[in-house]
Amino acid sequence: MCENVRVTVWNEFRHERDNEQIAKIYPDGMHAAIARHLEEQPGIVQVRTATLDEPEHGLTDEVLAETDVLTWWGHAAHAEVADEVVARVRDRVLDGMGLIVLHSGHYSKIFTTLMGTTCNLKWREIGEKERLWVMAPGHPIAEGIGEWIEIEHAEMYGERFDIPAPDELVFVSWFPGGEVFRSGCCFQRGRGKIFYFRPGHETYPIYYDKDVLRVIYNAVLWAAPVGSARPTFGNWQPLEKVGD
Amino acid sequence: MCENVRVTVWNEFRHERDNEQIAKIYPDGMHAAIARHLEEQPGIVQVRTATLDEPEHGLTDEVLAETDVLTWWGHAAHAEVADEVVARVRDRVLDGMGLIVLHSGHYSKIFTTLMGTTCNLKWREIGEKERLWVMAPGHPIAEGIGEWIEIEHAEMYGERFDIPAPDELVFVSWFPGGEVFRSGCCFQRGRGKIFYFRPGHETYPIYYDKDVLRVIYNAVLWAAPVGSARPTFGNWQPLEKVGD
Amino acid sequence: MCENVRVTVWNEFRHERDNEQIAKIYPDGMHAAIARHLEEQPGIVQVRTATLDEPEHGLTDEVLAETDVLTWWGHAAHAEVADEVVARVRDRVLDGMGLIVLHSGHYSKIFTTLMGTTCNLKWREIGEKERLWVMAPGHPIAEGIGEWIEIEHAEMYGERFDIPAPDELVFVSWFPGGEVFRSGCCFQRGRGKIFYFRPGHETYPIYYDKDVLRVIYNAVLWAAPVGSARPTFGNWQPLEKVGD
Amino acid sequence: MCENVRVTVWNEFRHERDNEQIAKIYPDGMHAAIARHLEEQPGIVQVRTATLDEPEHGLTDEVLAETDVLTWWGHAAHAEVADEVVARVRDRVLDGMGLIVLHSGHYSKIFTTLMGTTCNLKWREIGEKERLWVMAPGHPIAEGIGEWIEIEHAEMYGERFDIPAPDELVFVSWFPGGEVFRSGCCFQRGRGKIFYFRPGHETYPIYYDKDVLRVIYNAVLWAAPVGSARPTFGNWQPLEKVGD
Repeated sequence: MCENVRVTVWNEFRHERDNEQIAKIYPDGMHAAIARHLEEQPGIVQVRTATLDEPEHGLTDEVLAETDVLTWWGHAAHAEVADEVVARVRDRVLDGMGLIVLHSGHYSKIFTTLMGTTCNLKWREIGEKERLWVMAPGHPIAEGIGEWIEIEHAEMYGERFDIPAPDELVFVSWFPGGEVFRSGCCFQRGRGKIFYFRPGHETYPIYYDKDVLRVIYNAVLWAAPVGSARPTFGNWQPLEKVGD
Repeated sequence: MCENVRVTVWNEFRHERDNEQIAKIYPDGMHAAIARHLEEQPGIVQVRTATLDEPEHGLTDEVLAETDVLTWWGHAAHAEVADEVVARVRDRVLDGMGLIVLHSGHYSKIFTTLMGTTCNLKWREIGEKERLWVMAPGHPIAEGIGEWIEIEHAEMYGERFDIPAPDELVFVSWFPGGEVFRSGCCFQRGRGKIFYFRPGHETYPIYYDKDVLRVIYNAVLWAAPVGSARPTFGNWQPLEKVGD
Repeated sequence: MCENVRVTVWNEFRHERDNEQIAKIYPDGMHAAIARHLEEQPGIVQVRTATLDEPEHGLTDEVLAETDVLTWWGHAAHAEVADEVVARVRDRVLDGMGLIVLHSGHYSKIFTTLMGTTCNLKWREIGEKERLWVMAPGHPIAEGIGEWIEIEHAEMYGERFDIPAPDELVFVSWFPGGEVFRSGCCFQRGRGKIFYFRPGHETYPIYYDKDVLRVIYNAVLWAAPVGSARPTFGNWQPLEKVGD
Repeated sequence: MCENVRVTVWNEFRHERDNEQIAKIYPDGMHAAIARHLEEQPGIVQVRTATLDEPEHGLTDEVLAETDVLTWWGHAAHAEVADEVVARVRDRVLDGMGLIVLHSGHYSKIFTTLMGTTCNLKWREIGEKERLWVMAPGHPIAEGIGEWIEIEHAEMYGERFDIPAPDELVFVSWFPGGEVFRSGCCFQRGRGKIFYFRPGHETYPIYYDKDVLRVIYNAVLWAAPVGSARPTFGNWQPLEKVGD
């Protein structure tokens, strides 16, 4: 871990092409903004991008085999992600690939499949403030972050967030409208690590925020696979003599 | 909770009809053995059974609506369980119905769907001993149980058990062949509680064991729904005045 | 569990005697308000109270032996609680007695000793609103509660709350000043269950609030001891034949 | 994390001086065996040792200030560790220093203080085999380890191990006498990370085992402090305008 990490930044990449306002913020797509930042960080040796409208959504067996951590942003077109690609990504996560699910990715097929729950939530889009409080100040994903992160304009997500209780809860968000949200959640599934991170609506320049980018970078290092044994399954002979 | 619980005991009910040896142990099926025990317990007001070969596997909307806790035993015919019934059961669990998954039910569609992982494991069938150690002596599922449960002849299941880390780990099994297994695991999913309990192979009279039956009964009480608010999801107005 | 629960409501009981304003709200002390409510609830068969200025703070071996669940409110006089009483209470908790720690009890000797951390936090007293969101809608402590609890005037507690990650997180509070707080936290220690519940400042009539009282009642039922085996410790003979 | 880690290896260092048999295995003490291994590992820039009979047990403020991760082995002389040193170590752990507690260190003042429970267990010393199964194959502490670790001759520790449920359970041990044990346990306390690792009895050459040494090294990297904000506590002004 912590070095030679190969990242693939996946993006639905529709809003940025369909909406002029959003195109101004992210002319090359949100994936480009995230990828550019990660490319410059220590420990990361390769950053690719992949998008929905590429063949196989850019997530071929080859690409996944060479990906240590995959970040995922989707929103309007979750249903268009092919089930076989979802199954392929899931297999890779269970085998050790890290997965960082961003913002509206909470409703993606890959996240809901891995969680087993609806991943539903409350939402509101009035550009209000968000403050993410650090719940776990010793967690590697909080490295370099102050006591909280403030985002001036954000879409609101509110609890109940219908996920399994996270294995580690790193951030909880406050919104002025009166809601809270578990906005930084770690899950271990199979040999893979999953981090859900809330910020990132397409109509705000959130993926240029240095704290948000730092968290994504930290999460990538945290989620990188560990060189541990792949468990064997199935019929199994005793390791010790049984009975007389 | 703790009273007026309505249970439905579900069983694949094939081995008991196909195999003479097994039929001798469970002439009316394993579900009958479990149901008879539960019927006599305080706090339980209704016990039904349902099996794979009934229409809709006996799990109609009506039955599920009147079920507080569902127990599940399946093995050879997981694939024959209809996807729409699985989806129906899952919706009920997320809405609050308890689910007790027994033994080879680890590989059922309903369990793997709710877990999001493969739920794979190691196994061996040589009739060896199993000793289940209590890890959480204050847990309601351990009520009335000693420091451990001993089962003279059991199928072995060994780690790695590919599940999410359980919210609470109640039992860990020891096997003479050298393996261990997380054999009593609690999960909260949506408003529902899930308990996986390992013992129960069809070729041994395990569902007559008083400790095993006690754990199933305890788990039923623990998993009974709580009269809590059903969360609302979707677009949401602020509860407080936002901005100036 | 769930029946025949014997509760002892412990209170520092100083503010109510020293401060006229507070005496008006709680003429017989906060413990009396809580005790009166619990006395009327099903499943509870005995409610005592005990206070700091009684001999042994009212927590003799006899009283503790007859207590299934102890609730604790302290604030200004944590240091006056005798270490031997703290040790006695701790032993009982580890042996199975439930403990409900209320509000400023976060800084009590008994809570900090059982947690192992400072239990420090941010605070502010300007009588602002508190909204407690239910994080775990299927949890028995949330029974009968809506999606959230609203308290019109409360002292603020804000994160970072220096506790171990709770085993279960039932409530998270929102405050208008911009803070959040894990305000309903479950811990298992030894055979005992501990619930920390934030609301309850002495200058507000919070222990007359029906939702707050409901949570305390639910927590008492949840924390009641389970009739499980007391583990044995120390030198231990093998249960199986070892070696050849 | 993951680089420039400064380790202090602490050892009671009595058995190795008092017992000829043990002195033969560890002529310079167990701390020397561990320290020598760590010195050669990448990411570790400094390894000191400290022992009970040095002034302040070798754990002055200066030493602790320059220690990122402290490993702890104690057994016969837990009571001789000065309370003020324990308090000093605890403060450093809560402030971010990692702590690796080895074998009989389960009963040390520093571990029991941080856990809040008795940390008691069953034990037996007949030199039997131990097999540690990996429960969390994606965890950094399992890096480079197979599906299990085998130790030919070990002291047995058996459940019930009276600790809080670990935040992450990395290993569970199997013993031929019929017991199991949670032998690799992660805890977060304050900003610090704690790892309890069971193997290591003084009468067996366990700290020369490559898997055991690998786990200790992995744990050191995992437990190294993260450069995150130190939380502020106490009275706190609102970040947002409250009220009208």
